[in-house]
Amino acid sequence: MTRARRMADIEPFHVMALLARARELEARGMSIIHMEIGEPDFISPGPVIEAGHEALRAGAMHYTPASGLPRLREAISGFYRDRYGVQVDAGRIIVTPGASAALQLVMAVLVDPGRQVLMADPGYPCNRNFVRLVEGIPVGIPVDATSSYQITPAQARDYWTDEVVAMIVASPSNPTGTLLDSRQLAALYTVANEHAGHLIVDEIYHGLTYGVAAHSALEVSSRIFVINSFSKYFGMTGWRLGWVVAPEDFVEDLDKLAQNLFLSAPTLSQHAALAAFHPDTLSILEERRDEFRARRDFLLPALRETGFRIPVTPQGAFYLYADCSRFTGDSYRFALNLLEDAGVAITPGIDFGSNRPESHVRFAYTTSMENLREGVNRLRRCIDPVRTC
Amino acid sequence: MTRARRMADIEPFHVMALLARARELEARGMSIIHMEIGEPDFISPGPVIEAGHEALRAGAMHYTPASGLPRLREAISGFYRDRYGVQVDAGRIIVTPGASAALQLVMAVLVDPGRQVLMADPGYPCNRNFVRLVEGIPVGIPVDATSSYQITPAQARDYWTDEVVAMIVASPSNPTGTLLDSRQLAALYTVANEHAGHLIVDEIYHGLTYGVAAHSALEVSSRIFVINSFSKYFGMTGWRLGWVVAPEDFVEDLDKLAQNLFLSAPTLSQHAALAAFHPDTLSILEERRDEFRARRDFLLPALRETGFRIPVTPQGAFYLYADCSRFTGDSYRFALNLLEDAGVAITPGIDFGSNRPESHVRFAYTTSMENLREGVNRLRRCIDPVRTC
Repeated sequence: MTRARRMADIEPFHVMALLARARELEARGMSIIHMEIGEPDFISPGPVIEAGHEALRAGAMHYTPASGLPRLREAISGFYRDRYGVQVDAGRIIVTPGASAALQLVMAVLVDPGRQVLMADPGYPCNRNFVRLVEGIPVGIPVDATSSYQITPAQARDYWTDEVVAMIVASPSNPTGTLLDSRQLAALYTVANEHAGHLIVDEIYHGLTYGVAAHSALEVSSRIFVINSFSKYFGMTGWRLGWVVAPEDFVEDLDKLAQNLFLSAPTLSQHAALAAFHPDTLSILEERRDEFRARRDFLLPALRETGFRIPVTPQGAFYLYADCSRFTGDSYRFALNLLEDAGVAITPGIDFGSNRPESHVRFAYTTSMENLREGVNRLRRCIDPVRTC
Repeated sequence: MTRARRMADIEPFHVMALLARARELEARGMSIIHMEIGEPDFISPGPVIEAGHEALRAGAMHYTPASGLPRLREAISGFYRDRYGVQVDAGRIIVTPGASAALQLVMAVLVDPGRQVLMADPGYPCNRNFVRLVEGIPVGIPVDATSSYQITPAQARDYWTDEVVAMIVASPSNPTGTLLDSRQLAALYTVANEHAGHLIVDEIYHGLTYGVAAHSALEVSSRIFVINSFSKYFGMTGWRLGWVVAPEDFVEDLDKLAQNLFLSAPTLSQHAALAAFHPDTLSILEERRDEFRARRDFLLPALRETGFRIPVTPQGAFYLYADCSRFTGDSYRFALNLLEDAGVAITPGIDFGSNRPESHVRFAYTTSMENLREGVNRLRRCIDPVRTC
């Protein structure tokens, strides 16, 4: 039976096959250390859960406006003021069913068929598919350690032809955990501006930075599209709630598209998220940030000592993007073998693009220090420069 | 600044402007009877809310598999067995963030740029935009009372050119509340089959039928795409949860697209929905169905007596699609005047297509009998064949 051609270009997450295999092995009683999972292992902070109960008791379960509860949009605006010292009108904030929906809305509003969107390779795998969905062309720019895996202004200029309408960057980045500072963001925005194009900045790992305060692209310009989420820093993945801050003249289009595509974001999640900015919540989140930092500070040197090359110390997110070419020329097979032989699950490079994926794997430190220690021990027992497992 | 051309074709819900005006009037102390709202006025059934509390207590707030909790897919499969006597493998059921997401997935998987999808006009307004999003062409087939506002097999054959890949029908339909019986569904499926195309059936108002049991298209063929939702019958709108049942060879594509576009449906909602099929829940839902039926049985003759033409008695959903040409040649202006002068909010025909929208309005009986009575009284005072308000 016929199906759309785009389906041939859209790949599943390859880690899903690994995950399915991990579940099989676990069902047989094998212990698996999960270092492939892209979400915090913590449950949502207590005040968020309590706000969820409260919303259930209050019967808050009908549709909200497509752009979100006005009170939540105001609260997000307040967060930008308090944390970044930047004034963001609540009317420019559109609450979405996860950052996924925010990314989709922005691509759908900006990208005509055949037009290109620039993005780092390696990068978040769904971005290219949001572009492909609307018949645009995702263009991966190969990035490496020399630029902390971020697109440089020089690269952006090189790639920015007449076909390009936008560039998306992420700070901190998935899978590399690296940041863009304000100067770099401003320089990239300048390039977009020179071409009358758009800059989209994915800030969904904001808050999860270690030893450095991430700057929002909104400090650079109110003309930048900024994507954020309650999933990672706020620990609310399964609630499916994110937002986009848009230039004022795009709000109406984003709103009407949100009406049509999503009707509204989950209502309970929106009510629960009102508690996300409470001082008690933020103090819990800061403790968790410290925990993530301790995990990074353990895992990074441990992996380096084991023989993985991680040339840039990531300052954010909860990922380490590691060159495994000392052990393998086929990182997918390598990840599969690690799973079968060592009981350690990691994500193969192929999920993040086509820039030397066979030489890279991603480790997520979204599991306890105890598990990370055990995972590293297993890696060491299994990885032997002579007999690679 | 540049934006995608599709945005010029995608319209906002026109009722939103009316709703905004209604809120203004309410803020000034005016009483408004809301007969424009497309969701049940009831909160979710008690067992569903209790399951939500339970999931919060259990910390069920991480991502689920993209296709949904296996237990929920099994429960939906069981519902098809119990209610329709049809065997649907749980593996063919993909749980989505609302039926909205299900509709989007199906259109994205089936429709190439420039290819057409047939749909009834009047019909659910978002359908044409799901098609437009992926650069397909929605083709509205004008329907009227002679076919109970449903596409006939003869019409489907007339419109089914080489450019057509699929047809979507809804039973019960929004805005008309009319049904397709099994024989009609089979006939439409035959037409789709003759052209090696697809039939998509929107069953989101199933359960809300009065004096007749709706048949699922899955009783006709396992090759039909069926969309359903926990929103309407199950009273879970704001939880944003729906599903699609797909032919087996499309499941993999739908799953990989769901991974990329949505990651997963809201986790709490999925856990809460496990209680939706409990006998206690179903008995609450049956009482509510009786209440909706009583409302229809009051409102339908009352509107007819007032001078609205409603030639077909709708057997499902909670809408009455009324010809208002006796009062106006501009149903949008008419709706606005009713709001300002009578304090009654209804939806203008323009939200449902371009087939004589200026002569039609939609009434929703999603408010109490008391409110409906008051609404009708206000209409009667205001609508005067001599001085139309």
